[in-house]
Amino acid sequence: MKRSELVENIKNKRSFLCVGLDTDIKKIPAHLIELKDDPIFEFNKAIIDATAPYCVAYKPNLAFYESLGVEGQMALEKTIKYLKQNYPDQFIIADAKRGDIGNTSQLYARSFFEYLDVDAVTVAPYMGEDSVKPFLGYDGKWVILLALTSNKGSRDFQLIKDESGTPLFETVMRKSAEWGGIDEMMYVVGATQGSMFETIRQIAPDSFLLVPGVGAQGGSLEEVAKYGMTNECGLLVNSSRGIIYASTGEDFAKAAADEARKLRDQMEVLLAKHNII
Amino acid sequence: MKRSELVENIKNKRSFLCVGLDTDIKKIPAHLIELKDDPIFEFNKAIIDATAPYCVAYKPNLAFYESLGVEGQMALEKTIKYLKQNYPDQFIIADAKRGDIGNTSQLYARSFFEYLDVDAVTVAPYMGEDSVKPFLGYDGKWVILLALTSNKGSRDFQLIKDESGTPLFETVMRKSAEWGGIDEMMYVVGATQGSMFETIRQIAPDSFLLVPGVGAQGGSLEEVAKYGMTNECGLLVNSSRGIIYASTGEDFAKAAADEARKLRDQMEVLLAKHNII
Repeated sequence: MKRSELVENIKNKRSFLCVGLDTDIKKIPAHLIELKDDPIFEFNKAIIDATAPYCVAYKPNLAFYESLGVEGQMALEKTIKYLKQNYPDQFIIADAKRGDIGNTSQLYARSFFEYLDVDAVTVAPYMGEDSVKPFLGYDGKWVILLALTSNKGSRDFQLIKDESGTPLFETVMRKSAEWGGIDEMMYVVGATQGSMFETIRQIAPDSFLLVPGVGAQGGSLEEVAKYGMTNECGLLVNSSRGIIYASTGEDFAKAAADEARKLRDQMEVLLAKHNII
Repeated sequence: MKRSELVENIKNKRSFLCVGLDTDIKKIPAHLIELKDDPIFEFNKAIIDATAPYCVAYKPNLAFYESLGVEGQMALEKTIKYLKQNYPDQFIIADAKRGDIGNTSQLYARSFFEYLDVDAVTVAPYMGEDSVKPFLGYDGKWVILLALTSNKGSRDFQLIKDESGTPLFETVMRKSAEWGGIDEMMYVVGATQGSMFETIRQIAPDSFLLVPGVGAQGGSLEEVAKYGMTNECGLLVNSSRGIIYASTGEDFAKAAADEARKLRDQMEVLLAKHNII
């Protein structure tokens, strides 16, 4: 999906919500496990049908599917196909945090952009340029590079200052901007460190940012928008557990829709406040 | 596999060779594609049967299997089962370079150590402690953390010096040593930078190191052993393409065995020179 389409979808939907499909077989409602052949896919399908009006993106985290082996892989592929056939305006992110030497990253890129045909994949920067570049250059496809993550461990290495006083995550953002432009590269920036969005917008004024950590991980939507929103929005804010596990009963899909709608309503206010809609 | 068993296997086999099963459907011999149901597995099986006498470990890189979707996943699972049933003394490394927030890394750990039941998984350090720790604490299982990789892009971030002049990869090694001991954590250290093994042995005198980049990526086995070998060997040296694609004809397995034997012969000399055998 091209940047202009994504921005258009955000304006039309009045939302910059991404729903994280972190579907855990141990957490989905009991009645799905009992009645269905492929409970992971059935859960995802119900969540997607219920939440699609309120979001612009879906982000399956691959760990949840890989942990189920071949069955999980099949559920993931079915979920992506279902999204593409029924909701072609949704931006699909494979949250995989891949990154390997050049010829291997090339294979990962093929997996995600040709075989699975998703719009974006999250990539870890540690191995540098030749581990990231093979994911670039696919028309309408995106790298979402880890910059400042929302977990506690982000402080261990991402905030280390170099000899000139620049933290590692800033160097990652500056250097990677030489590898790919704002039409093909986004950054993961955790919402638990809201004030840092000011610094981040100095480095990457127009880049889209994928913001996890709103909700279960504790970030504030207002703060993210205050410091991080551009005149094209420039944000995808992800919520996973807060939406998909809003209820563990038979009403799980309705409960998920309610949570997604609440976030959309807040996002609509913020988009209007910033004169984007 | 416990550290003592690995060391014992190295002494018995007179080898510290790891064979990289980077099996690319586009590179395997034509006669396998034409005749067999599952050419990836058949190729791996033939390579394993031919090379097992000369190596102590196998390392499938997951990118190669993931790029084939469900079929690739099945070929990977069959390969691992085949190894475990027929060559239980081989150390199996899933080269996956994973790493995510805590609850997600936990799922990856389950995938690799419970579902696939491999001995080790490669992990990327960028997200810090809570992304690595969930892989630790499994009895006889290992984290192999990326420290200094063998690719060109390793210079982009891994060599950045902090305010006290310490390069990032050294900080990764020092800090991670607080998370897991030498019985459960190894490091990836690229062989293209042979002289750096001296520094690395100051930081991690007794840790096992997984060394890629000998062969196709250009490193020297003598130099690695000179600077990196401990009195328990402490090295697993990987070769992938140089062995598995030694020939693309019907003699591919024999050619792979020849290359693996050559490396074993060199390793035997080096192990003897260091009084390990």
